[in-house]
Amino acid sequence: MDDDCPVARILGIIGKKWTLRILYEIKMGDSVRFTDLMSSSHGLSARTLTKRLSELERSRLIKRVSYKEIPPRVEYSLTDQGKKLMDISGLIAKWAMKWDATS
Amino acid sequence: MDDDCPVARILGIIGKKWTLRILYEIKMGDSVRFTDLMSSSHGLSARTLTKRLSELERSRLIKRVSYKEIPPRVEYSLTDQGKKLMDISGLIAKWAMKWDATS
Repeated sequence: MDDDCPVARILGIIGKKWTLRILYEIKMGDSVRFTDLMSSSHGLSARTLTKRLSELERSRLIKRVSYKEIPPRVEYSLTDQGKKLMDISGLIAKWAMKWDATS
Repeated sequence: MDDDCPVARILGIIGKKWTLRILYEIKMGDSVRFTDLMSSSHGLSARTLTKRLSELERSRLIKRVSYKEIPPRVEYSLTDQGKKLMDISGLIAKWAMKWDATS
């Protein structure tokens, strides 16, 4: 698989530890804050979460909206591309559950 | 993402270098031989191909049929589970191509 294959590239992103979990939490919460993500994912460090969020933002799968309030508020939500990817991931999840049951 | 999550497990398998490529070649050829796979994938070593094929067989995504002929003939084809996975992978590929175009 070439490095310039888009499928390999997206698997490289969503295959990273915590990434699908983070995307799933954002999808379920619609629009979530950093602290929501921290508290819903046991074992995930703030450092890793920061890294994953910025990877996902760069890949245009999530968007970061910062509200000019005191104290400042930042929320993450899925982009349209991210939503579509999560729909397809749902199909994989269904398939994987059946596949796993026959292991 | 837990290690016992089926989605993480399947991404761990199909995310490996060459695996999707091999699955795709088997899908297109319907039933293919080791030498077919070698000749269609530049840069893939016999050692890696052997490893990937046995991983895919263990995961029940492909099946290996050995024909009792002289010289012996071995062919690989997708299992029903493998076919379904490739259908879903096709959706990811379509999505990834669009996503990539907006990079």
